[in-house]
Amino acid sequence: MIVSLHDRADAEFVRRELAARGLWATPLADASGKVRHFSVACVAQGRPRGGGRHEGVAGVASLPKRAPRVDAQGLVVDVGGVKVGGGAPVFSAAVRGRERGPGERAIAARVAKAGAKFLRGGAFKPRTSPYAFQGHGDEGLRWLRAAGDAHGLKVVTEAMGEVEAPRVAEWCDVVQVGSRNMQNFSLLKALGRCGRPVLLKRAMSATVEEWLLAGEYLLSHGAPGVIFCERGIRGFDDATRNLLDLGAVALLSTVYGLPVVVDPSHATGRRDLVLPLARAALAAGAAGVMIETHDDPGRALSDGPQALTPAELDQTLRALGATRGDTEEA
Amino acid sequence: MIVSLHDRADAEFVRRELAARGLWATPLADASGKVRHFSVACVAQGRPRGGGRHEGVAGVASLPKRAPRVDAQGLVVDVGGVKVGGGAPVFSAAVRGRERGPGERAIAARVAKAGAKFLRGGAFKPRTSPYAFQGHGDEGLRWLRAAGDAHGLKVVTEAMGEVEAPRVAEWCDVVQVGSRNMQNFSLLKALGRCGRPVLLKRAMSATVEEWLLAGEYLLSHGAPGVIFCERGIRGFDDATRNLLDLGAVALLSTVYGLPVVVDPSHATGRRDLVLPLARAALAAGAAGVMIETHDDPGRALSDGPQALTPAELDQTLRALGATRGDTEEA
Amino acid sequence: MIVSLHDRADAEFVRRELAARGLWATPLADASGKVRHFSVACVAQGRPRGGGRHEGVAGVASLPKRAPRVDAQGLVVDVGGVKVGGGAPVFSAAVRGRERGPGERAIAARVAKAGAKFLRGGAFKPRTSPYAFQGHGDEGLRWLRAAGDAHGLKVVTEAMGEVEAPRVAEWCDVVQVGSRNMQNFSLLKALGRCGRPVLLKRAMSATVEEWLLAGEYLLSHGAPGVIFCERGIRGFDDATRNLLDLGAVALLSTVYGLPVVVDPSHATGRRDLVLPLARAALAAGAAGVMIETHDDPGRALSDGPQALTPAELDQTLRALGATRGDTEEA
Amino acid sequence: MIVSLHDRADAEFVRRELAARGLWATPLADASGKVRHFSVACVAQGRPRGGGRHEGVAGVASLPKRAPRVDAQGLVVDVGGVKVGGGAPVFSAAVRGRERGPGERAIAARVAKAGAKFLRGGAFKPRTSPYAFQGHGDEGLRWLRAAGDAHGLKVVTEAMGEVEAPRVAEWCDVVQVGSRNMQNFSLLKALGRCGRPVLLKRAMSATVEEWLLAGEYLLSHGAPGVIFCERGIRGFDDATRNLLDLGAVALLSTVYGLPVVVDPSHATGRRDLVLPLARAALAAGAAGVMIETHDDPGRALSDGPQALTPAELDQTLRALGATRGDTEEA
Repeated sequence: MIVSLHDRADAEFVRRELAARGLWATPLADASGKVRHFSVACVAQGRPRGGGRHEGVAGVASLPKRAPRVDAQGLVVDVGGVKVGGGAPVFSAAVRGRERGPGERAIAARVAKAGAKFLRGGAFKPRTSPYAFQGHGDEGLRWLRAAGDAHGLKVVTEAMGEVEAPRVAEWCDVVQVGSRNMQNFSLLKALGRCGRPVLLKRAMSATVEEWLLAGEYLLSHGAPGVIFCERGIRGFDDATRNLLDLGAVALLSTVYGLPVVVDPSHATGRRDLVLPLARAALAAGAAGVMIETHDDPGRALSDGPQALTPAELDQTLRALGATRGDTEEA
Repeated sequence: MIVSLHDRADAEFVRRELAARGLWATPLADASGKVRHFSVACVAQGRPRGGGRHEGVAGVASLPKRAPRVDAQGLVVDVGGVKVGGGAPVFSAAVRGRERGPGERAIAARVAKAGAKFLRGGAFKPRTSPYAFQGHGDEGLRWLRAAGDAHGLKVVTEAMGEVEAPRVAEWCDVVQVGSRNMQNFSLLKALGRCGRPVLLKRAMSATVEEWLLAGEYLLSHGAPGVIFCERGIRGFDDATRNLLDLGAVALLSTVYGLPVVVDPSHATGRRDLVLPLARAALAAGAAGVMIETHDDPGRALSDGPQALTPAELDQTLRALGATRGDTEEA
Repeated sequence: MIVSLHDRADAEFVRRELAARGLWATPLADASGKVRHFSVACVAQGRPRGGGRHEGVAGVASLPKRAPRVDAQGLVVDVGGVKVGGGAPVFSAAVRGRERGPGERAIAARVAKAGAKFLRGGAFKPRTSPYAFQGHGDEGLRWLRAAGDAHGLKVVTEAMGEVEAPRVAEWCDVVQVGSRNMQNFSLLKALGRCGRPVLLKRAMSATVEEWLLAGEYLLSHGAPGVIFCERGIRGFDDATRNLLDLGAVALLSTVYGLPVVVDPSHATGRRDLVLPLARAALAAGAAGVMIETHDDPGRALSDGPQALTPAELDQTLRALGATRGDTEEA
Repeated sequence: MIVSLHDRADAEFVRRELAARGLWATPLADASGKVRHFSVACVAQGRPRGGGRHEGVAGVASLPKRAPRVDAQGLVVDVGGVKVGGGAPVFSAAVRGRERGPGERAIAARVAKAGAKFLRGGAFKPRTSPYAFQGHGDEGLRWLRAAGDAHGLKVVTEAMGEVEAPRVAEWCDVVQVGSRNMQNFSLLKALGRCGRPVLLKRAMSATVEEWLLAGEYLLSHGAPGVIFCERGIRGFDDATRNLLDLGAVALLSTVYGLPVVVDPSHATGRRDLVLPLARAALAAGAAGVMIETHDDPGRALSDGPQALTPAELDQTLRALGATRGDTEEA
């Protein structure tokens, strides 16, 4: 945002007024050294905070709104009657069972009992190496749907390519876009046309603006709602698997008014940090958390070390205040 | 950590056992392709989790303890009777008053009433530009001490150089090391010899290990205690001023058992994110938070846009459950 | 890489031997404190440098080869008779003309005369915003092919989705994968099946290992060759548009023996830095450079400020030693 | 830089004019949507490129010059008759000898013969751990001075604290500020007062602007000249030890007109990449390179794996065109 001064304005007075409103103002001077404008770091684009008619101020100009549909979406995305955002936090268990089919139904039963509303499973899995396990494919979709239906859970799963997108969308309630595909624009367009709400994971090194614009691709191509998902960005320290950016979560929920959920399992890669960071995520304003669970983590085909057992999930959701009673009322 | 296998061990069995304990194990094979060891990402150095005598395991080896004094310190640092870590969270107000002297006493009164236990002020200020305000120097130290004493607040202030360190230490209860000086080893040694507890801010791009080793410098040169302070690291996105790393906070408090406080004001640079991130910090395990306050933010000589007014501080600490009553009981 | 010691080995002697060969060795000790192994940071996976039968060494183990087809590829990719890697550097002009069709042929004529061997054009363009210009599509492919054919230039263009991949591959000599799609595994698989060499741009925050594994996806699904392209990664400083990582270029060409080209235009976003960084890229071992050109940069539909005019391209390639005569001999 | 438009200006025309000059212009609109200004990313502060009186442009404003003394310094720093910048590249060998004293003189002889003009040695060493070797102190200074004098080499060494700064400055020709101390403002002030030219290493995550402002501290406190030194910044990939930022080197030398040298040894941590990256550094505009050498790298007390032997240094400088003859003429 640029705040332009009247010819006889007292620049220091205007700077103080801006600082008093929480705005960082950098003076911009003409060749003679006279301050003509202030450049104001104003995070939410198209949303000048402050400004208006004020002593010494000749005008205010800002970047055009770049993501109008995201701006207009609001805080709540409705998934077949379950509201994400704006109320009680929602819990999602990312399940992986040893025995596909019956195993998944059993784990879904426990997850539902623990208070989760969403069941996430990976039928198609993005793997860094072409030689790693790539998911159970279409059969996995059917198992997941059956397990969700049997226990009243909404189903979330990832679509990895534009070709499979419509088929995946048919079997689930929310389609997930993985972080490696956040700027796979062909996929975003194809998914928009599927008409399902989308869970949009932030890319490894995406800025908040790039993330919002990826959401704008989805909404402008027809998606009925976008839930943002922070899962840790790339950092320089391997003390944790990724770097959880709860500042971005607070920014999206508090300033932009958007639903954002957090995946503390991928963010840290450590079971012992799932609970403190899930708590922190909700405190920062997250609409929910998504936690990895496996009935036998040692035999998981991927990501076992970060998965909780169903008993640990139960304990964790309890600690997060997610007893069935609580969420029923919400 | 390296887990070495017996000649006839079932490598897959051992991998599963490790994953079941939450450990990521990468196989290492000899020239013939036989898996001989697993490399285990084991965050807390010198603290093998798991391991021991297990089927198929010939031995376990790990990095030597690099920061034995930090390891031995424990969760609580006592500052003249006020405990940081291990109990009720402590609140610190970083005050900057318009009128030095009387102004600071007035603000200290309000801060104490709001429930804070620590008063931080900047007598010497590290500034990126040599032409920016450099602090009030020795006079600032006396004002700060008087304001703290008048209202029963412990005083925290920054020492920027080895020469001034003993003088600064004399006037305060906790000496702060700023992020730009985290690896100023001459200063760390000088401060260690002063015999005061130190608040050690994490450098812009310090790994957790480098941060702990900076603490080891302090303790090995005589400091009676180190309180770690996360204030946001350098990120690639200017949506927030810095990138608050609450994963590191959870790691230090939960896994390493160390007292760590969080500065949400510098971390985000935005008043409207101070409360959600202060909440998140405490949820992640922080021993306390440090919040910038100014009785007239527009006239602050630095960092005004991120400072709360005393009334906003009061509200914020209340929201954090820091009414006087609460902390009295702790 | 893990170097394991004999029971009576002199650990310090072994450490010195390793350091003398340029290897950083970190000691790993058992519970009694005895050093049992050295962990050696050995960049090229599956390629233990040193090791073997040495005094005090009981064995050496390392990560399994993760990208065997990339390892086997070698330094040269042949594109219809033009060799990329292993000899004289190749130059590629990324052209964008004001008038499509005739404009492109005219610019191709100049580019060919300046010594370039490759013509890159964007028929499909990945754009951060859904409202930005998305490319000329199929018609753009035909213009590009015609312009290349008329002047003996190989044609490079980007495929953005698995559906369009075969069609794009048909019209060009090398298919480009953009940085946002480096881990779009559906696209990599589809492109591998097209049977064309692929130019694989590194993702914004991809590690070298992730980049190599993306290449492995292509080769394992049928691509006849992969040319790696460094175009700047995400950094924390906006002094340049991106952060050019010539260390990775030197690593890929010198240590891994792979063809890697550099795009200094996207890396810096500044015309005045294109020449010094193109020179530096070749000095670091790049097999070629790819430079953006536009016959009227002010009217470019994207990236105009970083594009050279054809006259500037001519000058630049001349300065790089790419007079027609030179490359003819190569 | 802000370019403000006349009320009836054709904004698109102005945007094209700016793009044609290589300037990225972002439109800023008032509440009615009318474009009032362009925000131009203009790297060199206080140096508007373009601008001036142009059709449709009402005025140009920019950030005030923040580092006027650095701006005024120019491309060459004279060190007792040896010019750094603006001519033939200078070579510096960072020597570490097994036998202090005689060993250093022997290695200095070889280094001088290889064509180096500067001898760097570490009398005081910044080490991440308090238990690592901390340097030979004052005795090391005397050895270094004697070795330099015996062979006509200028001496460079690091000062780590404000107390030792004057003593260190007395024994050497150029004082080095290490990356961990780039924003140790007490040290910068103390060194400025010593009156020696300073070699200022860039901090791990310093922006170019912060680096220049650290230089401004030195010059504004009396330093006769500042030579900037890029030694790799912190990245997310451990494929190389640090991330060499040659874009910043090109920017400083080409756009800012400042002398900048490169340390490829610390940047990569690998002997086999020293030559390609030293070449690339000079191609990018570096005024010189600084290469680590040790007469017995296996016995080096630190950083042995990245040090060249004197014979390798000789080969490397030869390959860089640094035969004695060449530099004599320069």
